[in-house]
Amino acid sequence: MYCDSSFGYVYQEEKIQCQKPIQLRSFLSFILQLLRTNMLHQIALLATVTILGVLEQAYFAMQVIYARRKCKVSPPGVSGPPEFERIFRAQVNCSEYFPIFLSLLWVAGVFFHQGLAAFCGLIYLYARYQYFSGYAWTAQGRVSCFVQRRAGTKKVKFIHMTSKTARE
Amino acid sequence: MYCDSSFGYVYQEEKIQCQKPIQLRSFLSFILQLLRTNMLHQIALLATVTILGVLEQAYFAMQVIYARRKCKVSPPGVSGPPEFERIFRAQVNCSEYFPIFLSLLWVAGVFFHQGLAAFCGLIYLYARYQYFSGYAWTAQGRVSCFVQRRAGTKKVKFIHMTSKTARE
Amino acid sequence: MYCDSSFGYVYQEEKIQCQKPIQLRSFLSFILQLLRTNMLHQIALLATVTILGVLEQAYFAMQVIYARRKCKVSPPGVSGPPEFERIFRAQVNCSEYFPIFLSLLWVAGVFFHQGLAAFCGLIYLYARYQYFSGYAWTAQGRVSCFVQRRAGTKKVKFIHMTSKTARE
Ligand SMILES: N[C@@H](CCC(=O)N[C@@H](CS)C(=O)NCC(=O)O)C(=O)O
Ligand SMILES: N[C@@H](CCC(=O)N[C@@H](CS)C(=O)NCC(=O)O)C(=O)O
Ligand SMILES: N[C@@H](CCC(=O)N[C@@H](CS)C(=O)NCC(=O)O)C(=O)O
Repeated sequence: MYCDSSFGYVYQEEKIQCQKPIQLRSFLSFILQLLRTNMLHQIALLATVTILGVLEQAYFAMQVIYARRKCKVSPPGVSGPPEFERIFRAQVNCSEYFPIFLSLLWVAGVFFHQGLAAFCGLIYLYARYQYFSGYAWTAQGRVSCFVQRRAGTKKVKFIHMTSKTARE
Repeated sequence: MYCDSSFGYVYQEEKIQCQKPIQLRSFLSFILQLLRTNMLHQIALLATVTILGVLEQAYFAMQVIYARRKCKVSPPGVSGPPEFERIFRAQVNCSEYFPIFLSLLWVAGVFFHQGLAAFCGLIYLYARYQYFSGYAWTAQGRVSCFVQRRAGTKKVKFIHMTSKTARE
Repeated sequence: MYCDSSFGYVYQEEKIQCQKPIQLRSFLSFILQLLRTNMLHQIALLATVTILGVLEQAYFAMQVIYARRKCKVSPPGVSGPPEFERIFRAQVNCSEYFPIFLSLLWVAGVFFHQGLAAFCGLIYLYARYQYFSGYAWTAQGRVSCFVQRRAGTKKVKFIHMTSKTARE
């Protein structure tokens, strides 16, 4: 039996030797390419969230650089006005948790559900942005700013932030 | 020749057109599913050790939070009583090495032997716990506590720890 | 039709039952092994650059340990002579960016081009070594040392480094 490359037609022969080496190599290349494409689809969302996380970390680093220039704190110094120290610590804290975030994102995305893991990853990145913004505002703001925005009480937040700033 | 979906029977025909599209799609889906399952098995232990590492990092972070409350060191401050500073530095040092640990774990587990890499990963996590406990106790304890427990000399360790604590 | 394990010959039969279970298992094992090998080839360069990055981080950590001994700054202290503080901050900064580097390396290498991503990774590791060397020399040197070496002006660099050291 002769199997041509299009697998379309077969012919009767008493002894048939399929041109197996050529078809097998083509078939395997085809399988490999298909599997690679399929695998990339299975991690594409996770990779997107990873890149968004990297961009966020870059944004935080830029804020520290601006704060260093504004508050005139040159490396290797890490002490200065409270405003600088809060931004510096906010960026360091976000950097500390970045590998933990990536580990959980990828393990959950590969072993359980890619879409759900990516969605939780986006929630985390948003929470981290709130944390950074709040911490840069006041030390308490790293938690308050996020909690109160969730509750939707902009008025209470304004009073709370003002009182915290006054106390510091 | 007609190849039915169970690949069980064949019929002779002069011109035969295999119902290749349907079978090929089913066959490929089956292969993809099988490969995905096989691949997940090949990294399951590494993922487990990764999660254990994340839990350990979370434990260290909680210890810092407790120490901040106990020693009354509010963010963004990182200076305070020696007890706080040791716990803080221990957690920072563990965080610094966490990405290095993950890189080595996964490269070794994927390219060489998953079981052995996972086992070494567990050893590392245990050593890190000893490091943190020792460092939280005394600055020298970040190494002593681990070395002496290995040597099994509990008496010498007690004397050593006492003398170190007395010197600090 | 009887398909033997070598796929070489076929015989005519009215009802043919392929010895599918045994061949399919062998075939799938073969496919799995081939795919695993193929996949490892597709990430081998990325893994190599990852290991080089880990070795570089280990080198930076060793420099901090030597600096601690030389400048007599014992843990948990992180303040001391400017020479120690620069080396300490250089190593901390490199550690902060290591997870970002790994994320970009692997996402670019898996989704775009392994060779190109690995090459850019090597450029980054070299730039990081220049950054560390420069920063250890002077605070300005973390950028100057790299920029001037690129311009190939060794003479200007010597004068620049001397003047910076004199100013600090
Ligand atoms: N953690 C960094 C974040 C921003 C950053 O990477 N800055 C660059 C350019 S100013 C740097 O070399 N920082 C010096 C350092 O980290 O000690 C910082 O404190 O500055
Ligand atoms: N490195 C952290 C570990 C624990 C942690 O993540 N603490 C939270 C809640 S107190 C925080 O926002 N820390 C502020 C900071 O890292 O500056 C620390 O020093 O506090
Ligand atoms: N960031 C580390 C880098 C080198 C390191 O890992 N040193 C070990 C041995 S001296 C250590 O336990 N450091 C204590 C610490 O990081 O607080 C440091 O500042 O020392």
